[in-house]
Amino acid sequence: MEALKIYPFKPSKAVTGGSNFDTERIFSVLPEEVKDKGLKIELPLLQKLPYILREGDEFYALLIREEKNFFLADIFKERPDKVLGLAIDIGSTTIAFYIYDFLKGELLKEYSIYNPQIEFGEDILTRLHFAKKPENLLKLQERTLSAINQEIEKVGFENVYYISLCGNTAMTHFILGLPVNYLIVEPYVAVARWFPLFKGEEVGLKINPRGRIFVFPLAGTYFGGDLIAGLYEAEIYKKGEISFYVDVGTNAEVVLGNKDFLLACAGAAGPALEGGIFECGLKAQPGAVESFWIDEKTLSLSYKTIGDERPLGFCGSAVIQLIADLFLHGWITPEGKFNLKKIGPLIEEINGERVLELISAEKTKQGYPIYIKEGEIKSFLRSKGAMFTILTLLCEKVGLTFEDVEKFYVAGSFGNHIDVRSAVILGMLPEEALFKTIGLGNSAGKGALKFLKRAEYEEIKEITERITYLELNVEGRFMELLTGALIIPHVNLELFPWVKKLLEEK
Amino acid sequence: MEALKIYPFKPSKAVTGGSNFDTERIFSVLPEEVKDKGLKIELPLLQKLPYILREGDEFYALLIREEKNFFLADIFKERPDKVLGLAIDIGSTTIAFYIYDFLKGELLKEYSIYNPQIEFGEDILTRLHFAKKPENLLKLQERTLSAINQEIEKVGFENVYYISLCGNTAMTHFILGLPVNYLIVEPYVAVARWFPLFKGEEVGLKINPRGRIFVFPLAGTYFGGDLIAGLYEAEIYKKGEISFYVDVGTNAEVVLGNKDFLLACAGAAGPALEGGIFECGLKAQPGAVESFWIDEKTLSLSYKTIGDERPLGFCGSAVIQLIADLFLHGWITPEGKFNLKKIGPLIEEINGERVLELISAEKTKQGYPIYIKEGEIKSFLRSKGAMFTILTLLCEKVGLTFEDVEKFYVAGSFGNHIDVRSAVILGMLPEEALFKTIGLGNSAGKGALKFLKRAEYEEIKEITERITYLELNVEGRFMELLTGALIIPHVNLELFPWVKKLLEEK
Repeated sequence: MEALKIYPFKPSKAVTGGSNFDTERIFSVLPEEVKDKGLKIELPLLQKLPYILREGDEFYALLIREEKNFFLADIFKERPDKVLGLAIDIGSTTIAFYIYDFLKGELLKEYSIYNPQIEFGEDILTRLHFAKKPENLLKLQERTLSAINQEIEKVGFENVYYISLCGNTAMTHFILGLPVNYLIVEPYVAVARWFPLFKGEEVGLKINPRGRIFVFPLAGTYFGGDLIAGLYEAEIYKKGEISFYVDVGTNAEVVLGNKDFLLACAGAAGPALEGGIFECGLKAQPGAVESFWIDEKTLSLSYKTIGDERPLGFCGSAVIQLIADLFLHGWITPEGKFNLKKIGPLIEEINGERVLELISAEKTKQGYPIYIKEGEIKSFLRSKGAMFTILTLLCEKVGLTFEDVEKFYVAGSFGNHIDVRSAVILGMLPEEALFKTIGLGNSAGKGALKFLKRAEYEEIKEITERITYLELNVEGRFMELLTGALIIPHVNLELFPWVKKLLEEK
Repeated sequence: MEALKIYPFKPSKAVTGGSNFDTERIFSVLPEEVKDKGLKIELPLLQKLPYILREGDEFYALLIREEKNFFLADIFKERPDKVLGLAIDIGSTTIAFYIYDFLKGELLKEYSIYNPQIEFGEDILTRLHFAKKPENLLKLQERTLSAINQEIEKVGFENVYYISLCGNTAMTHFILGLPVNYLIVEPYVAVARWFPLFKGEEVGLKINPRGRIFVFPLAGTYFGGDLIAGLYEAEIYKKGEISFYVDVGTNAEVVLGNKDFLLACAGAAGPALEGGIFECGLKAQPGAVESFWIDEKTLSLSYKTIGDERPLGFCGSAVIQLIADLFLHGWITPEGKFNLKKIGPLIEEINGERVLELISAEKTKQGYPIYIKEGEIKSFLRSKGAMFTILTLLCEKVGLTFEDVEKFYVAGSFGNHIDVRSAVILGMLPEEALFKTIGLGNSAGKGALKFLKRAEYEEIKEITERITYLELNVEGRFMELLTGALIIPHVNLELFPWVKKLLEEK
């Protein structure tokens, strides 16, 4: 059942009697599925209703679902051309839009824009600190709303009757103008878990005045509506088989579970895995290197860029593969240090830091070399170690091993581009992930879109309420496990028998 | 459970962990009775919540009931002085106000103002026709809203968090700005039966922006929210014993029933019974005659006025008693004609109509005589006949006799002032009413007040849905029965054995 339904109807005839209501002339002929004795109509429509109903014989009713019941949001004299829903996933870097046609029941368009909040800070933490002042929070909110309103305007705001919106906890606070001051200091308190179904004007989004906005609830400070939407899309909470749901963004957010339990954990493993910490790291764009190949004989690297343009830098997806290959070829040690015996001539020092030149200055677009720092590799190993530790810890907590996990759902752009083989070689993912990984793409956005099509309030509630959150900061065990995971692939090589064999075969 | 509850609370301490919400720090400490996992808070309050909660240790939560659930409407740092509810009964002549203190749980004040709509027409029908033009409907609406807003302002609009409002179908349409154009022509269609719980701004009533307005639903074109509120007060729908609920206003509205059935009927019996059709009729006010006594020897009348002032006219309560006495003394015939043999000298002709002078010109305030017309008595007999017929018909429909009816609840000012003995002598009420009548006063207003204290949405729904409406216009049987009831007390004197005996004793 969609969040919004349209039905043609012929109002029943009013017969002289003491109990004649225009509203009931409509309700009485609506399909059983949306009937509700208390079916509501808002006052502005009631004030026009008697006139509208006497201007024809057949009409179209637009009903919007609000929790369990529908309300009659609008009436048309003719079949409307456009009744749209928008699913919006506000990411910290991009805002993804899904334009859904309720009349045709199909997705018309799917695209992203950059999140304009970037002008107030590249990363979320900068923006959060900026937003501590109420006037700055307002700026962030207004800038985001105006960017979204611009997109709504492109399809005609009067055509948009429903928005399904998700974002992480910070994004959700920003768009709703909720103070973040206590979100960023111990004990990290968010304002609210649930939100009522809003009208556009309440939030500041310019949609049809009869329309509604659903904002995905939050599961925790590090577990936003985007994760709830993603789980809703992946449906691991419905299945008998046990799965991991892994979302890598600003943080690495991981959920382990099935229909019986949902255990969640988040850690600061994100930016490194997405390429964000590398000086020569880039977002996917023309000129970004997407793969490197090591030429053992010439001690050099070849590469491929997006659009085959002159290289500008490398994107996140290239990093995991690169570091795994560096390790397999013995160019770096299991600790992530450059193997000077082997690649000494390739190592330079920049500002006192050892770097490996990947592409020389004369080949790049800007005329500067593209390199990776030893320190960056160390940071990366902390992130990959954190990821593996989170996965291990979640299994431990419920007394399972990786073998018991049937699927590894990997969400986000990371999920689309990750080279699982390299991730396993690095010990970021366990070997069980090799044949069990499913890339979900933008599962948060897809989950928001799914809500337009199904409006399963009860399921959203269920997911949100069922998640048990495992706090890393208070788990000494995390630090214990992390130490071993900082090595490639792991201190305990027995955990990675396939990688061990691979190394032995070298 | 009141429509609104206030609880002192100490927010639970936020503990470092992934799932900390300011909202849940409140919910977790609220009493079980208002707890709801999805307990909602509107955005403007959410946007201030984190600041408020850090300005103290103890707070007061104001919760408002919305159907089955509560929402958190407001938070106070100190125990508020005033949290008021208003019950408002919009009658066509007066608007009754009940000011209820939610903190003390007591009624502070109860009073009425004149309905300012009178400037657009004395009677409802005139106003309904006036309101056919949308700009006139707006005038009626605005005039009424502004009169009510003035009263709200007297107690401080910011103190008013809840309004429980009832009115007949026309009044409800006027105040909500709903078109009445199809209410006044066949087949007499009202706009809506149910109304959502409004915010003040939606309706145009100036209350606290966090507050709500409950508008009693309508049961039919002639059966408004005032009747639903009255039934809610009288509770006949809950009892095993069978009762009549009689409300005389513009129409006579009658409900027969108990916990198993509710049969309703309305007829144009009202104005005559309230004194509205009499040229010398007056509203209760100083100078209005409230009783007449017949002096048989001198063929004259003595009287008592309200405030013992010089007479201006007579009020509704005096009419029934007067006509009954005129009949008992043989001054009028059972058909309502002047008995010229007896009171010939008292009869005059004004504009070709026979009138009985009740008070001579020199005794009255304005210097004009106070009289009753023969035609007016005939009109009155049609009304009293209609009333008796409605009562008879309702009993007939369910196969009961008046003896099966345990109580006659009589609502409205009519109910307060009616002389049941006279009403029975005239054959307006059956003799069973003599010892079974209970005057309810303004049961509509009291019902609206009761809703502030109990907010029993389910009961209101139940009443509204359970009422079966008996349409008079389509009942040939009504005309059949009416004919016999136009006589005093009735063509069939056996129906009134006590009156018969009274006449024989004369």
